[in-house]
Amino acid sequence: MSSKPRTAITPTRAENYAEWYQQVIRGADLAEPSPVRGSMVIKPWGYALWENMQRVLDDMFKATGHQNAYFPLFIPLSFLQKEAAHVEGFAKECAVVTHHRLEVGPDGKLMPVGELEEPLIVRPTSETIIGDAFSRWVQSYRDLPLLINQWANVVRWEMRTRLFLRTAEFLWQEGHTVHATREEALEETMRMLDVYATFAEEWMGMPVIKGEKTAGERFPGADQTFSIEAMMQDRKALQAGTSHFLGQNFARASEIRFLDRNGTHQYAWTTSWGVSTRMIGGLIMTHGDDDGLVLPPKLAPTHVVIIPIFRSDDERARVLEYCHGVARELGAQRYAERRVQAIVDEREERGGDKIWHWVRKGVPLRVEIGPRDIEKDALFVARRDRSPKDKQSIPRAQFVADIGAILQSIQDALFARAQAFRREHTHEIDTKEDFYAFFTPERVAENAPTPIHAGFALTHFSGEVELEQRIKDELSVTVRCVPLEGGEPGICPFTGKPSAQRVVWAKSY
Amino acid sequence: MSSKPRTAITPTRAENYAEWYQQVIRGADLAEPSPVRGSMVIKPWGYALWENMQRVLDDMFKATGHQNAYFPLFIPLSFLQKEAAHVEGFAKECAVVTHHRLEVGPDGKLMPVGELEEPLIVRPTSETIIGDAFSRWVQSYRDLPLLINQWANVVRWEMRTRLFLRTAEFLWQEGHTVHATREEALEETMRMLDVYATFAEEWMGMPVIKGEKTAGERFPGADQTFSIEAMMQDRKALQAGTSHFLGQNFARASEIRFLDRNGTHQYAWTTSWGVSTRMIGGLIMTHGDDDGLVLPPKLAPTHVVIIPIFRSDDERARVLEYCHGVARELGAQRYAERRVQAIVDEREERGGDKIWHWVRKGVPLRVEIGPRDIEKDALFVARRDRSPKDKQSIPRAQFVADIGAILQSIQDALFARAQAFRREHTHEIDTKEDFYAFFTPERVAENAPTPIHAGFALTHFSGEVELEQRIKDELSVTVRCVPLEGGEPGICPFTGKPSAQRVVWAKSY
Repeated sequence: MSSKPRTAITPTRAENYAEWYQQVIRGADLAEPSPVRGSMVIKPWGYALWENMQRVLDDMFKATGHQNAYFPLFIPLSFLQKEAAHVEGFAKECAVVTHHRLEVGPDGKLMPVGELEEPLIVRPTSETIIGDAFSRWVQSYRDLPLLINQWANVVRWEMRTRLFLRTAEFLWQEGHTVHATREEALEETMRMLDVYATFAEEWMGMPVIKGEKTAGERFPGADQTFSIEAMMQDRKALQAGTSHFLGQNFARASEIRFLDRNGTHQYAWTTSWGVSTRMIGGLIMTHGDDDGLVLPPKLAPTHVVIIPIFRSDDERARVLEYCHGVARELGAQRYAERRVQAIVDEREERGGDKIWHWVRKGVPLRVEIGPRDIEKDALFVARRDRSPKDKQSIPRAQFVADIGAILQSIQDALFARAQAFRREHTHEIDTKEDFYAFFTPERVAENAPTPIHAGFALTHFSGEVELEQRIKDELSVTVRCVPLEGGEPGICPFTGKPSAQRVVWAKSY
Repeated sequence: MSSKPRTAITPTRAENYAEWYQQVIRGADLAEPSPVRGSMVIKPWGYALWENMQRVLDDMFKATGHQNAYFPLFIPLSFLQKEAAHVEGFAKECAVVTHHRLEVGPDGKLMPVGELEEPLIVRPTSETIIGDAFSRWVQSYRDLPLLINQWANVVRWEMRTRLFLRTAEFLWQEGHTVHATREEALEETMRMLDVYATFAEEWMGMPVIKGEKTAGERFPGADQTFSIEAMMQDRKALQAGTSHFLGQNFARASEIRFLDRNGTHQYAWTTSWGVSTRMIGGLIMTHGDDDGLVLPPKLAPTHVVIIPIFRSDDERARVLEYCHGVARELGAQRYAERRVQAIVDEREERGGDKIWHWVRKGVPLRVEIGPRDIEKDALFVARRDRSPKDKQSIPRAQFVADIGAILQSIQDALFARAQAFRREHTHEIDTKEDFYAFFTPERVAENAPTPIHAGFALTHFSGEVELEQRIKDELSVTVRCVPLEGGEPGICPFTGKPSAQRVVWAKSY
């Protein structure tokens, strides 16, 4: 093993993908498990990334006419019962508040007292509690459309949790809108799916497929669910955002009615849509490499880290002054609607440790500056999308002037790489035998130390719920979505029946 | 009553202050009660105000070196027991999660099942759960200071709730910091108190007194608690923000220890500080008048509302085009670190209804534009800090050019008015008799239809906890704070003993 190239993360993706994921998070200091079952602590570097995502998404929501509001954390148990399918899907694993007081018991320990008349559920999603408010807010067609978004924490009592991907508590936004007509609600559903796709591709650099979910994967209570699906580097699919057309189901459940222009009472049409901190998991698994996190520049909390290199105190003062001058000049530049974020790493650490620290954290550009660079008025620059050893000397003025273009070229390179990876691992598969072979881990295991999944299969499908369930049971593979971009009709290899278009099959998170 | 001047809010402040407060919130559409006991829904106008507060505070926190992070909503019951005083103060009225699953019972209704081994408390504040994380993050003096802030929802099971002022769930920020020395922690405590005071005065236009709390009003577990105290228009005090010096109490409870430069393990020194959506209540009661909300321009979601006045469709098109032109020009101007927010009210409502709509919402500037104004290229402008009937014609170009100065003059006028009000109702009181008279409602009731409280009494106090408690029992009056700006020593009128300085006595929210 001594000839194995050094990587900043152990194990590598090929050695053990799941463990690599945990170690990237640890190495970048994004988050950590907490003593509260299934909940995580989002550390400053992870939270700064989330803040950047929030800011961009929030601007996109506002640009499409939405307003933020805030609704209660607790949902009365009776509310959850209002929509039948919703009960089935959401009322299962919830945190239930049953008491409102603590007292010191006979053993000197605190114990819950003050039982509530009606238990309260910590929101797993807010359709029912927001629907209750909307039933008051919506009276007339003049009140429509009602376009609301909430940034909030939600809780789903997951049994198997993984940082960012699936945690009992997570942060998200949930959009909830009310419309006078079916057409307008469907239009809104698609508009927000487009917003999510634009955010994923243009900001996260993560290519996604927009599509509709099959009945089995639909949101409980929705008429139609749409999602964006991304391919992770283990070739599994990650559902990165969903947009639901709720028909009149929740409007009937919550009595959201309005007086139309003709003076008739009508039930309204509603939508809901959300993305969560799960997107951070998607970002990690789209761009991360065996040296750790790789941040798309548009969302990176820090764009440029400057590492001063010096040997003596005398050199130190001179080098630091120069470094701060460069940081100031960079900070006066703009990229992707904010100032370029450049910092000087002045910590008392060895230069090599600093370099690997920032490599693991995924900062797009690393600049090393020592006395000899200052003499030449040039900087030693390394891009995070290339090998850590691939450094280039660039004249200071040129680097500062070009900083926006350099960051954009990293952003573009990451997106192009992710697109190429997805293309390479997406196959049109037309027979049942090829399909089963594609999704049988043994086949892949020959070439890799741990099983890597095959990728996306584009296969015709005649749509039977039982068939999809059987394939799920046999191969742990599901239809991730029916792509919106459509395609030619064909024959379903499982049933021999006609199929309107190929659908995306994959293992998924 | 027919000669009573019309007001947009009924009742007026003088008639029924508590009800006036609720009606201002309703009239401005800031928030509403929810069906969940003690929880409110923050509506878009209220949330937009909160977002502006958040943005300014967040910038101030970051400028003073803090980073945001996020910690679990749930706190294991055992954590609350770690700090003895904290248990007493906080473990009383909490939401307790005891189950993690719902099942359909024999009566067809959902019921909680899956009892947890250890109950979880919905955070009333996060010292204990954050302390647990800090005990891992802090190992060496190199890790200090650790300067963290969290934006979050918290829950305290209040029996009597009031929108914004006291709700079971509320939104806040809580800063938590760790330091190597007592001095640094105290310095941080005072720094953040200053940040809060600056925010209150310069952004909210709400004058505050910075001071220290007496032992009886201290945060449970703190060595010292400091607060900013503001006078509302009913002359009661509102504690609008607190900053706690926690000594080593929580560090001992959570085992936050570090290796100092000499290689010795030491307990760290911690602080915590917070402000909440309660500040919105303070803003309402500082500036609101009998026509509704009055927003300080620096925090107003909308600075200028433009109301088009027209009679025919032909006029409508011309007037709207002109209005949008003015809105665009205003939007290109900047005030208080953001673009001027100007909107045109195109709703299908009568002009008068629109005017009162925006008066109640507190928008700083109202501009009415009709055909005759367009001919003169002038605008009819009303400032929200003056009478609704006080309108002024201003040439368009001048209004646009001066918009920043006009908004600042409103901001300054509101602050000056609040300062004058506080000055008028703050009295140095030197005898026990005067003190009791000052705080006896009957005395005030002679001049007002409903009891209005007397104001702030600046009175010497020798500091006995029992004395303060007796006065609280008798008059419902407490020491709001011992002002940091100090003052001359004197004699306590209650005990005849020496007193280091006058303290602020008042009724409070």
